[in-house]
Amino acid sequence: MTHQTESTFSDRHIGPRSDDAEQMLKVLGYPSLDKLVDVAVPASIRINEGLDIPSALSESEVLAELRSIAAKNKTAVQMIGQGYYDTVTPPVIRRNVLEAPAWYTAYTPYQPEISQGRLEALLNFQTMVQDLTALPIANASLLDEASAVAEAVLLMRRSGKNKGRTILDAECLPQTIAVVQGRAEALGFDIEIADLSKGLPDGDINGVVLQQPGTSGTLRNHTDMVAKAHDGGALVTVAADLLALTLITPPGEQGADIAVGSAQRFGVPLFFGGPHAAYMAVRKGLERMLPGRLVGVSKDSDGAPAYRLALQTREQHIRREKATSNICTAQALLAIVASMYAVYHGPDGLKAIAERVHGKAARLAAAVPGTVHESFFDTLLVKVEGQSESIVRKAEERGINLRLVDADHVGISCDETTTDAHLETIAEIFGVNLSADAETAIPADLQRTSSYMTHPVFSLHRSETQMLRYLRGLSDRDLALDRTMIPLGSCTMKLNATVEMEPISWPEFATIHPFAPEHQTEGWRQLIDDLEGRLAEITGYARVSIQPNAGSQGELAGLLAIRKYHLSRGDEARTVCLIPSSAHGTNAASAVLAGMKVVVVKTAGNGNIDHDDLQAKIEANKDSLSAIMITYPSTHGVFEEDVRWVCDQVHGAGGQVYIDGANLNALVGLAKPGEFGGDVSHLNLHKTFCIPHGGGGPGVGPVAVAEHLAPFLPGDANSAAGVDNSNTAGVPISASRFGSAGVLPISWAYVALMGSEGLTAATKSALLAANYVAARLNEYFPVLYSGENGLVAHECILDLRALTAKTGVTAEDVAKRLIDYGFHAPTLSFPVAGTLMVEPTESEDLRELDRFVEAMIAIRHEIDRVGTGEWQLEESPLRQAPHTAQTLISDEWSQAYSRELAAFPLRTLRHDKYFPPVRRIDGAHGDRNLVCSCPPIEDFED
Amino acid sequence: MTHQTESTFSDRHIGPRSDDAEQMLKVLGYPSLDKLVDVAVPASIRINEGLDIPSALSESEVLAELRSIAAKNKTAVQMIGQGYYDTVTPPVIRRNVLEAPAWYTAYTPYQPEISQGRLEALLNFQTMVQDLTALPIANASLLDEASAVAEAVLLMRRSGKNKGRTILDAECLPQTIAVVQGRAEALGFDIEIADLSKGLPDGDINGVVLQQPGTSGTLRNHTDMVAKAHDGGALVTVAADLLALTLITPPGEQGADIAVGSAQRFGVPLFFGGPHAAYMAVRKGLERMLPGRLVGVSKDSDGAPAYRLALQTREQHIRREKATSNICTAQALLAIVASMYAVYHGPDGLKAIAERVHGKAARLAAAVPGTVHESFFDTLLVKVEGQSESIVRKAEERGINLRLVDADHVGISCDETTTDAHLETIAEIFGVNLSADAETAIPADLQRTSSYMTHPVFSLHRSETQMLRYLRGLSDRDLALDRTMIPLGSCTMKLNATVEMEPISWPEFATIHPFAPEHQTEGWRQLIDDLEGRLAEITGYARVSIQPNAGSQGELAGLLAIRKYHLSRGDEARTVCLIPSSAHGTNAASAVLAGMKVVVVKTAGNGNIDHDDLQAKIEANKDSLSAIMITYPSTHGVFEEDVRWVCDQVHGAGGQVYIDGANLNALVGLAKPGEFGGDVSHLNLHKTFCIPHGGGGPGVGPVAVAEHLAPFLPGDANSAAGVDNSNTAGVPISASRFGSAGVLPISWAYVALMGSEGLTAATKSALLAANYVAARLNEYFPVLYSGENGLVAHECILDLRALTAKTGVTAEDVAKRLIDYGFHAPTLSFPVAGTLMVEPTESEDLRELDRFVEAMIAIRHEIDRVGTGEWQLEESPLRQAPHTAQTLISDEWSQAYSRELAAFPLRTLRHDKYFPPVRRIDGAHGDRNLVCSCPPIEDFED
Repeated sequence: MTHQTESTFSDRHIGPRSDDAEQMLKVLGYPSLDKLVDVAVPASIRINEGLDIPSALSESEVLAELRSIAAKNKTAVQMIGQGYYDTVTPPVIRRNVLEAPAWYTAYTPYQPEISQGRLEALLNFQTMVQDLTALPIANASLLDEASAVAEAVLLMRRSGKNKGRTILDAECLPQTIAVVQGRAEALGFDIEIADLSKGLPDGDINGVVLQQPGTSGTLRNHTDMVAKAHDGGALVTVAADLLALTLITPPGEQGADIAVGSAQRFGVPLFFGGPHAAYMAVRKGLERMLPGRLVGVSKDSDGAPAYRLALQTREQHIRREKATSNICTAQALLAIVASMYAVYHGPDGLKAIAERVHGKAARLAAAVPGTVHESFFDTLLVKVEGQSESIVRKAEERGINLRLVDADHVGISCDETTTDAHLETIAEIFGVNLSADAETAIPADLQRTSSYMTHPVFSLHRSETQMLRYLRGLSDRDLALDRTMIPLGSCTMKLNATVEMEPISWPEFATIHPFAPEHQTEGWRQLIDDLEGRLAEITGYARVSIQPNAGSQGELAGLLAIRKYHLSRGDEARTVCLIPSSAHGTNAASAVLAGMKVVVVKTAGNGNIDHDDLQAKIEANKDSLSAIMITYPSTHGVFEEDVRWVCDQVHGAGGQVYIDGANLNALVGLAKPGEFGGDVSHLNLHKTFCIPHGGGGPGVGPVAVAEHLAPFLPGDANSAAGVDNSNTAGVPISASRFGSAGVLPISWAYVALMGSEGLTAATKSALLAANYVAARLNEYFPVLYSGENGLVAHECILDLRALTAKTGVTAEDVAKRLIDYGFHAPTLSFPVAGTLMVEPTESEDLRELDRFVEAMIAIRHEIDRVGTGEWQLEESPLRQAPHTAQTLISDEWSQAYSRELAAFPLRTLRHDKYFPPVRRIDGAHGDRNLVCSCPPIEDFED
Repeated sequence: MTHQTESTFSDRHIGPRSDDAEQMLKVLGYPSLDKLVDVAVPASIRINEGLDIPSALSESEVLAELRSIAAKNKTAVQMIGQGYYDTVTPPVIRRNVLEAPAWYTAYTPYQPEISQGRLEALLNFQTMVQDLTALPIANASLLDEASAVAEAVLLMRRSGKNKGRTILDAECLPQTIAVVQGRAEALGFDIEIADLSKGLPDGDINGVVLQQPGTSGTLRNHTDMVAKAHDGGALVTVAADLLALTLITPPGEQGADIAVGSAQRFGVPLFFGGPHAAYMAVRKGLERMLPGRLVGVSKDSDGAPAYRLALQTREQHIRREKATSNICTAQALLAIVASMYAVYHGPDGLKAIAERVHGKAARLAAAVPGTVHESFFDTLLVKVEGQSESIVRKAEERGINLRLVDADHVGISCDETTTDAHLETIAEIFGVNLSADAETAIPADLQRTSSYMTHPVFSLHRSETQMLRYLRGLSDRDLALDRTMIPLGSCTMKLNATVEMEPISWPEFATIHPFAPEHQTEGWRQLIDDLEGRLAEITGYARVSIQPNAGSQGELAGLLAIRKYHLSRGDEARTVCLIPSSAHGTNAASAVLAGMKVVVVKTAGNGNIDHDDLQAKIEANKDSLSAIMITYPSTHGVFEEDVRWVCDQVHGAGGQVYIDGANLNALVGLAKPGEFGGDVSHLNLHKTFCIPHGGGGPGVGPVAVAEHLAPFLPGDANSAAGVDNSNTAGVPISASRFGSAGVLPISWAYVALMGSEGLTAATKSALLAANYVAARLNEYFPVLYSGENGLVAHECILDLRALTAKTGVTAEDVAKRLIDYGFHAPTLSFPVAGTLMVEPTESEDLRELDRFVEAMIAIRHEIDRVGTGEWQLEESPLRQAPHTAQTLISDEWSQAYSRELAAFPLRTLRHDKYFPPVRRIDGAHGDRNLVCSCPPIEDFED
């Protein structure tokens, strides 16, 4: 009898069945997938052997293996604090946001018409932050608190008139100080750490950063300090705890210019350090300098209120090296969780939680001798005279983690999960009796009197039933991967398999504090070691650090490693970074943040790097050449044959080669950047390695380096030994040593499930899919660039410029009309204006690819009707797209085309139809009339 | 400072905030909720003390407690077999069906227009079963394999011409034999267990039941036996394993009339015995006798294909005591999981799994000495001469559970999860070497040659991405609790909280075999003991058994307990069961199955039991009176003041009182049926105790009894000591001792989260909500029945008969028009034809109640426009409802009303609109042209 092998996960991850692949190859005229790949991928970079990673496991085996790894982590009552607090994720939010494909597989809301649900959720987040901080404009999240403070420092430096040094209060979180110092060093400005309780130091000061409560738990009234700083021409940032702000005077009311902090404790698991949403809010006048994404209210073409990302012209993908920040990814999914936690609890509920937390801390303070501060919110600093290690150990034996501050001090942080039993245990350890009650430890002059979160959204959805419906209703407004392919070039919207997602909710992964003792985190560290090792093998580098919690942070980490490398060799002049004009804007913005000067290299007619210009730019900067940043395959979706030559040129001139890993999905198992010329790359685990996009984050951007750069990998911002700021060590990039550890089981599982063969098969299938789409559509929308072999890599650029010139129909019109066809648009006008870039990925099967191809062909026929004059452009369904149900069912219909043509241009749509909730959104209107908080409900009435 | 207590779960479970409740009370004219309740609930039945159950725990505490209970179960490699096999639930199905509110909160698809998604899934199930069994008609699942065989036996008895005894092959599963014997005993027909390998016994035989493979693992060719049985006028049922049928000749091809079995191993966890979907398929000619739900294809008012439940006139809710079965609930959610497993794997995938399973068994058989059978599929019976206990113990020490058959035999069952490592461990235990390969053990004459599952649905959704989209797309067609209230009278569609649902997926609950050794199942038994004890306290009875896996089974168990009680006292004549005419049809059907004769008691004008008629019927049957079955509050939604008097009358005549617990949601914490007159009740955990309806199952129907009936609680069909069939013991009702154990953590959690106060508050809030809706709607749709106090209980009947007489608009028209308003209809024409029964439950908040009230008022205004002649009934939006998007957007619109009125009769609908996928369905057409398998895809083209 035959011995069938178990069907492998890769068959589920990869869309096309083998019959389908044959059919696709026939369209392309290739006899086999291997033959296609051999022609598409330059022989000069191909690897000849499989990847040296463990064989593929089945889904059950992976779950079993992850359970055994998880079992090596030790859960505990986490009272360490220091920026991370345990919290109760309401199960209805866990299941229906964190574990719901409709939320987690969504893309960043750049196509706002199909993103109204998550935009509303993010607007709730902004409104909550604005209200709690009492500052008028908040963004839609930042990566972590430490980098948020760094962004605030940079904002103060950009906008402050006084260009003096930046003062950080000694009460700032140590990891924040370490991250800010690293950034400042690269940019060449001075940071001073000062005990501001003793007053503001003399001299020119650009900005001041305060922490509320301080890292020691102390609460201070910052009003005078803010006034004094302002008097001296300085700006003030307060890093504030959102839960504390429900009880204490908010930064905005004390005059602060900027507030930042973490929204983690609003329902987001500890996750061993991340991902968590940080926030930033600013006073009026600073909004156009605010980094990160900002959701605003505008109107659609019917005049109805509609959400979209505001002030995008600030962002790095538009302003490139002139951008205010290199941040691209946000922490959308976590910001949504935090916002929903606020919606679920409302202002009264949040205040009740804060009062419980504070009450517990106050009872403990009344009982335990040696508490240092009289004013505090949730954290006690306790002086124990040489006993701290023993007390921390005793607590750990009882299942409680405390903070070991120094030999004489321990920190005890209460949170939402703290129980009376925990307090009693601590009292026993200190040999005292717990008091039944305690006075408040919030000074009268710091007690909050203003109201917050008064918008109805924070009181309407309080029963679980209505919360569930609110979550469902919002996600129904959006298109995510659970309903359609998202053929976004450069974004790799592939399957986020359930088996990869499940483990992140397990308590043994989700509830571990980032600063828990090492012996409690063995499972986590094993998983991370495994993953870093396997990613190094896949990319051909010597070492990988998963610390950077976004692609942009990976770029920064990589460029800082290059910078430190040159400095360590005394090459201080090497500060020029060459960047091809087709590069992603983030590249340039990151280079600037790494203290480099950007020099742009031209693109040749075939879309490749212009050789002559490259040589000229190298020659012109030969003494100052630090690095080149290239993307491979290029952002044009082409395998450039000459990549080794480019690398050699740069190396020959003493430069380092940074290969952006954004397009790694075209390489895995076929070629290794670390072998064909790269010294450093960052990867996007949220592209190639299946971490979902989460509606705009979390991302994870590991940095991979050759051996000579290994010493400069990111340092630990919370190192017990202190951060090494010398030129011989790496710079901490994230607050937590392992960045967004919480989502790493996803990528670990993906690699374990696929094995070398599966990963390579996925790459080949991605190349096949892109070439199939390119071949099918080329006669309707010419493919702009291809290799010498006529093939594209894993994506293709459809050039609409000639059609636009002839008919006026723009790439944007096509993108919006695709919504009527039930699709998320491809990447619009990147990297070439007037084009659409399509990346189908390996996960889409032939049926879905054909559905897309048919929609695009049908749209081309519609364009022709404009071209022939049958339709006036402005009155065509292309320009009028997308069409809402309300428009389509309106009693008045005066369009030049029929309702059915508008709604059901293809017959299959009659059976499965998505209706966008709004029509085309006027972004400029919103930017002119900036509104970034929840609009009154009446605005939605007719 | 104030000490806030933690917000309790009951605040999340209960919809109205306290402000809302005040507003609702104002409408009702009551100063407080307690006052309302005091008036609504007769003082004569009220309890004065809180429930003696543990205090309410928070969500985190409940999860922690359940984790500690789960930890007391020991997971193992389950190779016991005997009808239960481990299986891999594909994670994409686990997350997006079993754990997805859109699927699990759906109701039974009685309103087919908003149920097309789950109807399609169930049709896939039927098609899969028909194809695998090679029989033309399969139903949409039954409760478990044992009760499915019992149903098959009854079907054979109804339709067979020969009324002789029923023969069960000795190879039938022991639990099946036990359950069938219990049923036969009550109905008074003969069962004979025979070794049919020795030929068919002589004498008159009504039907024969065979098992394939047999319980010992043996495979037999049944063709000759079937022919011989048919020759003698008997019908033949084969209980067959669906996975085996991918490789062996199916029952239909061997001439069987009926096939039954379990679909558990198609991706449904072991769940400690249930819930699992059983199946039944029949040959042509028996379809109108088929018990259970049957999905069929019909057409909608536009002629488009549309699914709905077929041949409902067979069912107990219509035929009452003349029904072919008392089954009401099916196992929809589990049948959907099994069907999706089949969709995911396809015929080739299922066959490959079966071949792997068989190959493993064959390799083991080739190595292990003493295997009894040459022909087998997955299970080996091994003769071990007095060594069985020691071998089973050794295996257990190695983490493997085997079946202890008797002192000399062990059973070893392979399944989808069996690995080579498991085989090697077993080989080591037997001290043999495993062979590398083995011949097939399926005899040539039993090898399947016919194809199956050729419909495209079984090959289209093979990538995880497309599977995810298929699941999402289907659930989007339906309306479940995650989008709207489902105000179904008598169905108690309350919140199924996430925290209650999460634990059922934990491996420590989900992967336990029902026949695992007791010391491996301590956690399960603790949870069940707790739950039974708390339910006894809540209902006021002495003992509870959670074994019955549906309300109908609980009724049967309760009535059988009464029957045995009378018999044990020698009261053999007591066989009459009084049932009020307003009772649910299942009551009557269950009484018949318990061997009782139904006598109907009239309803008085006020909807209560007619006292005179009751006394007359008691008098007329005084020597034969067995019991009365009443529902309390009544099915009219009223607390009858005289319930104690009714109970006394029956008791006085020597009868027992059965109080149907369907409406227990109006009583919990306020009154106890066991205290105000009941001797026995069944509860519906899927109503009052939060187990979700799952689109039509699973249900759990515990039976609760007074002390004198406790000996007659359901027995264990798999008791090591054998089932006691005497009159002094209970009858096994389900195959597994703890029935649908797998979902019991839901109810356990609900009780633990609510505590006495919470449960009582929920009941009060349910009464408030029903009275609020009744008061708001009474002037538009008169409330048919209320108590002497003018109040209803937890539901109210809206009487449309006068409006119908005047305008022609029917209750069905209103139900269908409600779909356009975004609602699932209330219960239609039960218990009174021409009415709608509304049960809002405590979980709906005031906003949702008002949304419903406003929709109903708007509909009333529409009815008036028919009444005034403004609209012709046939051309009114009421009769034309529901309206699909396709109709509304059609280029031709010739209705007498506008598109906007059709689609958006209320302004709020413009913002949130559900479009049904089909228009009103013609059920009669489908029954005349019965099609119960997936229609060709072309049928869906225009």
